[in-house]
This record gives sequence, C-alpha cells and structure tokens, in this order.
Amino acid sequence: MPGPRKVTVAEVGPRDGWQIEPEFIPTETKIQLIDELVDAGIRVIEFSSFVSPKAVPQLADAAEVLAGVDRTRGAKFAALVPNAKGAERAAAAGVDEMRVFVSASESHNRKNVNRSVEESLEGFADVMRIAGEAGIPVEGAIATSFGCPFEGAVPVTRVGEIARRFYDLGMQGVGLGDTTGMATPTLVAERCRYLRQHVPELPIALHFHNTRGIGLVNVMTGLAEGIDIYESSFAGLGGCPFAAGATGNICTEDLVYMLHELGIETGIDLERLCAAALHMEEVIGRTLPGQVMKAGPRLQLHPIDEVETAVG
Amino acid sequence: MPGPRKVTVAEVGPRDGWQIEPEFIPTETKIQLIDELVDAGIRVIEFSSFVSPKAVPQLADAAEVLAGVDRTRGAKFAALVPNAKGAERAAAAGVDEMRVFVSASESHNRKNVNRSVEESLEGFADVMRIAGEAGIPVEGAIATSFGCPFEGAVPVTRVGEIARRFYDLGMQGVGLGDTTGMATPTLVAERCRYLRQHVPELPIALHFHNTRGIGLVNVMTGLAEGIDIYESSFAGLGGCPFAAGATGNICTEDLVYMLHELGIETGIDLERLCAAALHMEEVIGRTLPGQVMKAGPRLQLHPIDEVETAVG
Repeated sequence: MPGPRKVTVAEVGPRDGWQIEPEFIPTETKIQLIDELVDAGIRVIEFSSFVSPKAVPQLADAAEVLAGVDRTRGAKFAALVPNAKGAERAAAAGVDEMRVFVSASESHNRKNVNRSVEESLEGFADVMRIAGEAGIPVEGAIATSFGCPFEGAVPVTRVGEIARRFYDLGMQGVGLGDTTGMATPTLVAERCRYLRQHVPELPIALHFHNTRGIGLVNVMTGLAEGIDIYESSFAGLGGCPFAAGATGNICTEDLVYMLHELGIETGIDLERLCAAALHMEEVIGRTLPGQVMKAGPRLQLHPIDEVETAVG
Repeated sequence: MPGPRKVTVAEVGPRDGWQIEPEFIPTETKIQLIDELVDAGIRVIEFSSFVSPKAVPQLADAAEVLAGVDRTRGAKFAALVPNAKGAERAAAAGVDEMRVFVSASESHNRKNVNRSVEESLEGFADVMRIAGEAGIPVEGAIATSFGCPFEGAVPVTRVGEIARRFYDLGMQGVGLGDTTGMATPTLVAERCRYLRQHVPELPIALHFHNTRGIGLVNVMTGLAEGIDIYESSFAGLGGCPFAAGATGNICTEDLVYMLHELGIETGIDLERLCAAALHMEEVIGRTLPGQVMKAGPRLQLHPIDEVETAVG
C-alpha cells in the first residue's frame, strides 16, 4: 500500500472525551490514565482544555493534571485554548502546544463559541502573541470540516481559506475535525488534496468520528493521501451530541491495531494501550465502543473447550 | 476508486444472527422482518438453516419462514444445509440456493460439526446430488478463512484447496468467512488474489466480522481487489463467541451507506433498510452495533436549538 510507513497517533480522549462526562473524573485518576497512555507509547496527547471552568467544569483541573503527569518520556502535552485568557493559563501551566479551534460553518461556530468565524479567527491573534512570547507552538483545528449538522455540505474552499488564515497567523499545523461523522472517503481525498495544493506548508492532522461506522475507512483514505497524523480517543471515549447511542471519536486501540496490521509504525504498545482503555472503561463504569480491547490480540489462541462455536 | 460499480449485499442476519439469540423469534416476526429487508431492496438473503431443530431450535421454522415470505420480488432465498438430511428438507421447502460450509482449520471444523475437513468435503457430494436433482444451485462457505481462534494463522493454500474442491463438486460460488474477526487488508488482498489465480471460475463472496473494528476497512480492500459480493447482517446482529461484548458480522446499513458514498450501486433503499434494522433492535430488546441506523442520514440537518454542542 502506498502511504506513510510511520504515523503519529494523537490521543484526544482526555480532552474530547472527559469534557462531556457527566461526572467529574478525579484529577488523580486523570493523571494515572494519562500516564498509562504515555507508558503505552502515546507521544502526542490533548490532555485538557483551558476553557472557562464554569463552562466545562470537567476540565477545570487542566493545570493540576499537567503538573501531575510524567513529562520525562518525551510526550507532547497539547491543550485546547478558546481565547487569550485560556492561552495565558495554558502558558503559565507550561503546555507543550496550544490548539485553537473554529468551525468551517458559521452556524456551528456560533453555536459552539457564540462568535462568527471571522471573529474567532481575529481572536486567534491574541493567542498567537501569548503563545509566541512563551515560545509555545500553536495548531489550529477546523470543526465541521466535512459537513455541518446545521448547514449540510461544507465547501472545500471554506476549509482551505481557514487553513490559509491559520498559516498566515503562524500556526504550525491544521486539524480537520469530522465533528458529527459526515466524512466519507470521497470528501477526505478531496479535502486533503485541496489543502496540499493550496496550503502546502501546513501539516494536516485528521480527526474522524465513527458516527456512521466508517471512521477507520476514512483513515485508510487519509493514508492513501499520505497523511501521517490521526487523532483518536482511547476506548472510543466521547459521543455524538446529535444521536443517542451514536459513537464519537474513532478508537485509538482499533486505529493502532489497523495501522500495525498494515505494517505502519506507531511506536505504541497495543497491549498496554488496551489495558489503559479497559481501565478507562472501568473508571467510567459503562461499556465503551472500542473493539480490540474487548476482542484481544488477533492471533491469541483460545482453548478449544472454551466456547460453544456457532456455525459460520 | 477502482473496483466494481455495482455490488451485491447479501443479508445473513436471519440465519447468522437469529441462530444465536437466546429467545426464539416468532415465525411471524421473522417473516415480517425478512419482508422489510426485501422491501428495502435486499436481493440475496440467507434466511435460515436446515440444521437439526434440536441443535439449533431458533431456526427450527426454516420451512415455515420460507413459505411465509414475499417471494414475488425477485429476492434469492438461500439456506444453510449441514448435510444430506438438511438438503432434502431445503429442497422440499423450495429454497433458491443451498449453502454448505466447512472450516479451513481442522480444529474449528471438528468443534463446529464434529467432523474432519475431509469428512465434511466428502459429505457435500450427497448435498450436491440432492440439490442437483432439485435444480437448486449450491455455494460453499469456508469458515476461519482468515485465521482460526484455536490454531492461529491459516495458510492461503488451504483456503485455495477447499475452494478448488468446491468447484470440482459443482458449486457456483465460494464465500470466505472471517469467523472471529481475524481478517486484515493484507490477508484479504492475499486471499482474493490467490483464489482468482487458482480457482478463477468461482465467484468470491466476502463475509467479514467487525470484531476488531476493521470490518468495513476489509471491504474496502475487497473492493479494490474487484470483489462484488459482501455478506452482512442488518443492525449488526450476531456476536462473537470468543469475547464478551465483541461484535460479530459487519452491519448491512453501515456497509450500504459506505458503498453508496463511494458511488457504488446496491439497489438498496438505505432509509428502509435502517427502518428494518431499528425494528430488529426493537424485537430483540437490546442495543445492536449498527451506527447509521442510530446516526441517521449524513446530510440530515438538525435544528440548531436541538443540542448542546461540545467543543471539537
């Protein structure tokens, strides 16, 4: 298969998953779970968000989490920052990277952060200044990059314009977010090619949701397009706010399993990663979507008397 | 994308899913669900199995189901037959197609049907004779085609030998079953190419499980190899006997959604198919793995006040 021989799997569960949990996960537990991920070989982790603790109380302990995790292993700790205030807190906490976000569609951005897309983009200048003074790199994420639940199709040119603005602002990467699982192989190929042509300077990260079951299929398309950064969530943590029972982020273990089976290096120990995912499931107290953590290694042999086999 | 422009989606849920349900699904309900599938455009359906009613009481009503369903729409009703007795019952019931099965691995075949692979293959001669006299075509399925839970890796030559025997016996197709979800893109490509080269006369159907999350990724590989028949289960019905909570068959709606998004024709109405899957879930009284039936159409717009959106 053509495509990268090595891929960066960026873990976003601690931010993207924990932010929507009804119960606050104790800071100590967060630190332990993150350490388990780092121990499994995760080297980029979106560990929290410096948003208003009132808006997202689940992540109010971002600075404490960062202060507690093992930072000696070379993992990059990235945090979401919504505005200048968040950037100041993130810089003071000593994050390795800041991430800003804006939606490709007006209505989703307004719903999400109560601003127009243009207002969001203008606001990033302050974040860039603060990050720049602290010597911290910034990446930009574009939500609804493959479609908007309020507006439908999103033109690829819109995604390209925003990525260009990211680059002009001095950001070091762009992430395309498949916020509600509307990405398809056709759209993935189209968007990756367009960005490569129009904003070739900016590395692309792909963030898919498995809302309609084809999250990993979209990764396959991304790989064929040469993209080598994928964001995912351990145990498949995180949901879709638009459909009860629908899944959200693609699952890190399943992604890593697939990549390894394709002969692509990740630097991640799948067994340890599954152990961290199972621990996550235990902490959260409900079944999470990850498949490999339940099924176990592909070539694990079962004693023949263990099961009743069913025909087929 | 290279590959077929039209694909046959063969529904196996009524056999493969219902056979392992703890509660007997009433014959009338089975007939109604199958009619809904046919109404949605399904044209090949493994509707039941003529196995011993003592061994699989859930499917004891195979003949009654076939007598009750709508056969005026051109759908092909296929049934599994384990032996000569089953073939006689299936012929008497008037099935459109018989399907026999054997495992590629000795231990799985012995566990499944208490025979050696060779004994199973020899037994098919009787089935072929009975089917031939009734003018009914037969296809053969090879379980554990991509690996065996008891033995591990399965040599591609073994799969090829069995497919060759199928052809020599007069069968009209071969299905490769991914019994416990061990298929990977590498194995799929290898096995499809090998069969094309060594048994080019026999059309190939692929039957994947989503046990490790990459069932649809394997379909993508199958498509790239030119395979145009896929077996799946509506709502993702059916499980994996080797891992609690692990999923089994890939889900028909998710498969059809993907195929349509790739511009591949199936002749299936996705909305009606999802309605049948949701009905199945209701009948069975527990959440099933299908994603598209929960998430809804990709471009379905949501009222902006419907949800609290979460960042990202």
